[in-house]
Amino acid sequence: MKRIVVIGAGRSSSSLLRYLLNESEAEGWEVLVADRDEALARSKINGHQRGDATGFDAGNSEKRRELIAGADLVISMLPASMHIDVAGDAIHFGVPLITPSYISKEMRSLDEAAKAKGVLLLNEMGVDPGIDHMSAMKIIHDIQKKGGELIRFESFTGGLIAPESDNNPWHYKFTWNPRNVIMAGMGGTAQYIQQNRLKYIPIHKIFERYKDIDVEGYGTFEGYANRDSLSYRKTYGLENVPTIYRGTLRGKGFCEAWNVFVQLGITTEDFEVDCRKMSWRDFINAFLMYDPELPVEEKLQNFLNLSEEVMEMLRWTGIFENTPVGLEHATPAKVLQHLLEDKWKLEPDDKDMIVMWHRFDYLKDGQEHEVHSSMVAIGETQTYTAMSETVGLPVGIAAKMILNGQLSLSGVHLPILPEIYHPILEELESYSIRFTETTIR
Amino acid sequence: MKRIVVIGAGRSSSSLLRYLLNESEAEGWEVLVADRDEALARSKINGHQRGDATGFDAGNSEKRRELIAGADLVISMLPASMHIDVAGDAIHFGVPLITPSYISKEMRSLDEAAKAKGVLLLNEMGVDPGIDHMSAMKIIHDIQKKGGELIRFESFTGGLIAPESDNNPWHYKFTWNPRNVIMAGMGGTAQYIQQNRLKYIPIHKIFERYKDIDVEGYGTFEGYANRDSLSYRKTYGLENVPTIYRGTLRGKGFCEAWNVFVQLGITTEDFEVDCRKMSWRDFINAFLMYDPELPVEEKLQNFLNLSEEVMEMLRWTGIFENTPVGLEHATPAKVLQHLLEDKWKLEPDDKDMIVMWHRFDYLKDGQEHEVHSSMVAIGETQTYTAMSETVGLPVGIAAKMILNGQLSLSGVHLPILPEIYHPILEELESYSIRFTETTIR
Repeated sequence: MKRIVVIGAGRSSSSLLRYLLNESEAEGWEVLVADRDEALARSKINGHQRGDATGFDAGNSEKRRELIAGADLVISMLPASMHIDVAGDAIHFGVPLITPSYISKEMRSLDEAAKAKGVLLLNEMGVDPGIDHMSAMKIIHDIQKKGGELIRFESFTGGLIAPESDNNPWHYKFTWNPRNVIMAGMGGTAQYIQQNRLKYIPIHKIFERYKDIDVEGYGTFEGYANRDSLSYRKTYGLENVPTIYRGTLRGKGFCEAWNVFVQLGITTEDFEVDCRKMSWRDFINAFLMYDPELPVEEKLQNFLNLSEEVMEMLRWTGIFENTPVGLEHATPAKVLQHLLEDKWKLEPDDKDMIVMWHRFDYLKDGQEHEVHSSMVAIGETQTYTAMSETVGLPVGIAAKMILNGQLSLSGVHLPILPEIYHPILEELESYSIRFTETTIR
Repeated sequence: MKRIVVIGAGRSSSSLLRYLLNESEAEGWEVLVADRDEALARSKINGHQRGDATGFDAGNSEKRRELIAGADLVISMLPASMHIDVAGDAIHFGVPLITPSYISKEMRSLDEAAKAKGVLLLNEMGVDPGIDHMSAMKIIHDIQKKGGELIRFESFTGGLIAPESDNNPWHYKFTWNPRNVIMAGMGGTAQYIQQNRLKYIPIHKIFERYKDIDVEGYGTFEGYANRDSLSYRKTYGLENVPTIYRGTLRGKGFCEAWNVFVQLGITTEDFEVDCRKMSWRDFINAFLMYDPELPVEEKLQNFLNLSEEVMEMLRWTGIFENTPVGLEHATPAKVLQHLLEDKWKLEPDDKDMIVMWHRFDYLKDGQEHEVHSSMVAIGETQTYTAMSETVGLPVGIAAKMILNGQLSLSGVHLPILPEIYHPILEELESYSIRFTETTIR
């Protein structure tokens, strides 16, 4: 019997645990789930005879060592910054580790030690990062294998609301961490390369410079630039590809309306507003010029030259209402989050949707070719969401491959190698996570 | 004989040292100047028999204690973050201290200890902060004394180029720390209050929301909002004044043109540009959309809807030239500074100018009154600049008052008390630093 230890039983672990328990009999596994909240961990096991739960505080290094020493494989579903201690123990006890998170500097620095011990630390195994790498690298390698020269790579992913649950003018609800949505684009200047020219978009222009993306069968989305597209040149081995652009997808109309919040200055965390006596209307007015003659709506519309459509989206959020903000001192971003958490709340039957879209242009035999590849996943329930499925399944499949001895790698890795991505993409198809390729020319 | 120790002999110390040495015979002082660069310190003494110089590294706590123990008064002209060690020793040895810098949290926390030892730590004694406090408080106290109720206070200061040296379309040259000019407004959302409504201007709108300020005899300037006007409500005891706005002055046309740099995103420090192969033209182009059909000038003009006047100011800086940037990897702000340090360089005969302007509206006997007060100081030379004079003279005069026993205060102070500002403003007039009051209504 092989023991898999899963650390962290939060909502992104649901589909992973379902997969591991479903496979456990056939594969001869037992699955131990460790979480600060033992009852939560136990509820995710749901009485399965191959599963067990234990309480575990991530700061308890003795318990952590005990858990890892007794494991054949460890999966860390903790917040990204907390993987590093797990990775250190995994190397020490010679136990392979999987995480769904970006490789941090600290994680990368463990590469040599992991190789010396013959231990695999497999990261970026979720959806973004994860399935994005796998699905893109598969096509890039195919193009290279048949002698094509990649000249353009674009890649967009969005965590959205499913069409059947889409009943607001923003075509958006919080299906994931609201704070990340509010702070989107605020991390710094976006960097990409177009026709060999480095291109930079400052924070306050990111939502103005979005582009339309057509996804077959799902209509048009808007893609805004992620902070760093340039680092993918090295990760994917595309140093000489003249155009590389990565971004995030939103529904049609979202970017122009969200840009209003950015332009107003209410997506920042750089100071606190005293909103004890403020209505929503006062809050918005505080970011507009003083002019007692003009109503707030008119000031805002003039300030940013807004269409009636955008005004309608803004009105829908309630920012022009005379109701109290209901917070005391908070950063503008927290005030905005407070407003939208109410408006963009999921209803009990709502389903989420993950949309991923890639574009590859390449030269072959003097001809220019263009291929699009897209994947849309829709959640089953609010436990087995599209996010949980697309994060958890690749992690689970990778676990199976490692325990079956299918991956003879050591050191720090991410899924850009054919031996990793081929079997995973194949098995994902049986869970309806599949890419559709369209040849444009 | 009383000993004054001046720590720091940089360019802001020139006028201070001239003042102290000039007064030294009559007052019975000796002046010891300590600087990392002993030769620089000695050059500022210029052979005066009451002056002496010594080498001193601010990190050398033994030497610092020795210097302060032997002093009757210490003046710290070090960078603001370095005052705190000096202040600690000043309290220990019971020696009064003057600095021209804003009171930091650390400085404020020494208030009790200083009071217990009966030591005065007098801060914000330069021009801004310094003369701005003194000149504003004098009028505010006058209004209050005659029974007026202040309803609006605005205050603007600018370090500019004198009209006789103003020969470029920006009406600007670097007369002070270039980095502070490049990073102006980037520190965070500007906060003020207008008619009892809190008002916030995000970083990317600060140079769009400037206002015109007429200074009698010197024409129209532009004032943009400083980061924090709200803290002055407490400092000046103006908690119930409905309008308080503080800002920085620039020449006419400056704000609209500078806003182009802000909108482009080249006043940021959040990433580094690889400019090894870039011309100035390429650098600007990197912040604009890809469009090989349009020349950079046209793209920029369309992007921000710029007037021909602003385009002329931009052309003058050289940002459209094909010459190499001449840096390797640098933040956009550093690249811009590199460009402007060349263009906004002072010529040997150039003179600087400090402009300060206040507006006070008040109610008295049911009538609304409005008073403006302004001061313009023009530098003598590039050593005795207007900046050096307006920073050094109030510090020097305060030193005289303390050594003459004219100030019986202890603890951490700034010059908002009549007993401090009256004598200083009076003596400043004999150095042609004087305010002109204009009654508007």
